[in-house]
Amino acid sequence: MQSWQLPEHVADVLPTTARQLESARERLLALFRVHGYELVQPPLMEYSNSLLTHIDAGLSLKTIRVVDQLSGQQLGIRADITPQVARIDAHLLSANNGINRLCYAGSVLHARPEGFLNTREPLQAGAELYGFADIAADIELIDLMLKSVNIADFGEVLLSLGHIGVFRALADAAGLSAEQSAQLLALMQDKDAEAVKNCVESWCLDGMWVKAFALLPALYGGREVLQEARAKLPDLSAVGRALDELEAVCAAFPAQNVHIDLSELRVDNYHTGLLYAAYGSDSHDAVARGGRYDGLGAYFGRSRPATGFSFDLRSFIGRLPEIGRQSVVMVAREDAEAAKDAVAVLREQGQCVVVDYGIGHNGSDNISGHLKKIDGVWQVAEV
Amino acid sequence: MQSWQLPEHVADVLPTTARQLESARERLLALFRVHGYELVQPPLMEYSNSLLTHIDAGLSLKTIRVVDQLSGQQLGIRADITPQVARIDAHLLSANNGINRLCYAGSVLHARPEGFLNTREPLQAGAELYGFADIAADIELIDLMLKSVNIADFGEVLLSLGHIGVFRALADAAGLSAEQSAQLLALMQDKDAEAVKNCVESWCLDGMWVKAFALLPALYGGREVLQEARAKLPDLSAVGRALDELEAVCAAFPAQNVHIDLSELRVDNYHTGLLYAAYGSDSHDAVARGGRYDGLGAYFGRSRPATGFSFDLRSFIGRLPEIGRQSVVMVAREDAEAAKDAVAVLREQGQCVVVDYGIGHNGSDNISGHLKKIDGVWQVAEV
Repeated sequence: MQSWQLPEHVADVLPTTARQLESARERLLALFRVHGYELVQPPLMEYSNSLLTHIDAGLSLKTIRVVDQLSGQQLGIRADITPQVARIDAHLLSANNGINRLCYAGSVLHARPEGFLNTREPLQAGAELYGFADIAADIELIDLMLKSVNIADFGEVLLSLGHIGVFRALADAAGLSAEQSAQLLALMQDKDAEAVKNCVESWCLDGMWVKAFALLPALYGGREVLQEARAKLPDLSAVGRALDELEAVCAAFPAQNVHIDLSELRVDNYHTGLLYAAYGSDSHDAVARGGRYDGLGAYFGRSRPATGFSFDLRSFIGRLPEIGRQSVVMVAREDAEAAKDAVAVLREQGQCVVVDYGIGHNGSDNISGHLKKIDGVWQVAEV
Repeated sequence: MQSWQLPEHVADVLPTTARQLESARERLLALFRVHGYELVQPPLMEYSNSLLTHIDAGLSLKTIRVVDQLSGQQLGIRADITPQVARIDAHLLSANNGINRLCYAGSVLHARPEGFLNTREPLQAGAELYGFADIAADIELIDLMLKSVNIADFGEVLLSLGHIGVFRALADAAGLSAEQSAQLLALMQDKDAEAVKNCVESWCLDGMWVKAFALLPALYGGREVLQEARAKLPDLSAVGRALDELEAVCAAFPAQNVHIDLSELRVDNYHTGLLYAAYGSDSHDAVARGGRYDGLGAYFGRSRPATGFSFDLRSFIGRLPEIGRQSVVMVAREDAEAAKDAVAVLREQGQCVVVDYGIGHNGSDNISGHLKKIDGVWQVAEV
């Protein structure tokens, strides 16, 4: 193996892209800020017990584990920031019993990539709202998610909506055991309508539930799906509440291209209610993804309503606005000392100034001028 | 153990500090940019072979290792970014045979903290210049290091200078074996003058070398140390060249408080020449540290002259300029839809606007006004 070789699904970010990414990060944090979301920076490494709040095989497999040389305990490198932010809301910011709006943008590591095209070092950015169970909170977050995605060019963005409450309500009413529920959820997540049907039939459930579960994978499409669901699904109050929430979101984004899918349940195990995601016009996977996860903080001592989204800012590479290369003003080595003040002024104005040592250098393809003393005054002679 | 407990030497950064740190990072990257340093973002995790370029017990002990689930090879979480940047200069940017000015700001992890007060997750920021062996390059970097440290308030900053070339020249001329040289260097690094003297005496070296090595730990102080060194150290051309370089640096910073220490050799194993560090007026350890490390890139296929510095931006916390808390404009929930455009305008102007759901929220102690329709126009009624 060559010493310069990188592991699979791991990459350097080189200057032009790094500047784009950095600028996107700054714009994103400014966007979060003007919406009232305060930045937190939880650590890269924690006790794995703190990182893995739920029995979540997916997150557990993704989390790199090492032994802490100081405590002998097991540490994990974070594979997801949301549980860390839930910890902060529950523990460190527990003096606030009202709403906590928090945001973050930091690297996470995945032991295995999530897909063939994914990095193992996502730059996870996101926003979370704690302490408010109302659908208005979800709507606020969806709005912010759409604005966040908008810092890049993904074509016409599709808002995808689901609600785990529909499935849970049916599973409860049908009296499924926890195992059955988990098994069926996995089939739903795989979008295997045939297997879903066979599975519920094999359990000898009442025909009404067989019909309802078999119907779920077909309940996808535009806003009209909600009416269809109301007409065809069993009249359970929890189903009605979930559909009401979906309807409220649709109403809040009248001009938005919306896709509803009541079996789209590819969620983290901590999600409890409304699910939302943004898709680009030609993206095979969601660009950003979020949902409600009430109660995650209970693990850290305070159960709170919560909703939020996140995405991998690195996946925005190639969709971010082009940044013109930084133009460079050169100053001859022998002039550098005498021109010191003029150089400082230019740099304060944001102009890149480089001393010319007479050998090539990076940026030399973009020299805009030379600082020279003309008529007794240091001036930039343009190229 | 409580689920919210963090490992030792690991910490969350909460909103006020996070904003300070983020703002410092932005200013720092802008500073690097106007000096011609282009940003690179190497990965957090690489094959440990790539991260550990030199036989460096210190770096090796600090580097967290795991087995790559994709390749079965050993991976490391970076504990230092400089070798990664050397890899990029040597391999990815090898088309440029002139100067490469590169910079970075990213997290690293240390298996063990470097000291009682140090974090295990430094935010390492730094700048490196490849391809120019002249002392002018070191001077440029020292200037940039001092400007970088200046984004925080460390009182009057002391520039500390050393040069590994003096020690190496003496060790070569005295005919020390590699083992002897390493042993003596360790004693010098521990500043144990007595042990240094005993050690060289035990080796039955020519008296001239015994005297020279014993003298080194005493050669520290202001600019006058250089003359003393010239007078008292053996007249070796390599010693002369090292002292010439130190003199050139002193001359380039006539107004700077300078400390020279010819036995101050607390360096990374890759350092080869001039060493520089910045100390705050009351800091027990260097705030930033750098030096020349010619040839590190050879490991990656291209040997190049190189000089650069880095520091832990997190260690600047508490020294950074205070950032006024973001003031918040509230808009009543029932007005939010109608006031949409006015809210968007305020946010574009950088004003934080938050919908009031009638329960408390973070930032509520800093409300500057309420958006209200007055005389048919949405206006901020100040508090």
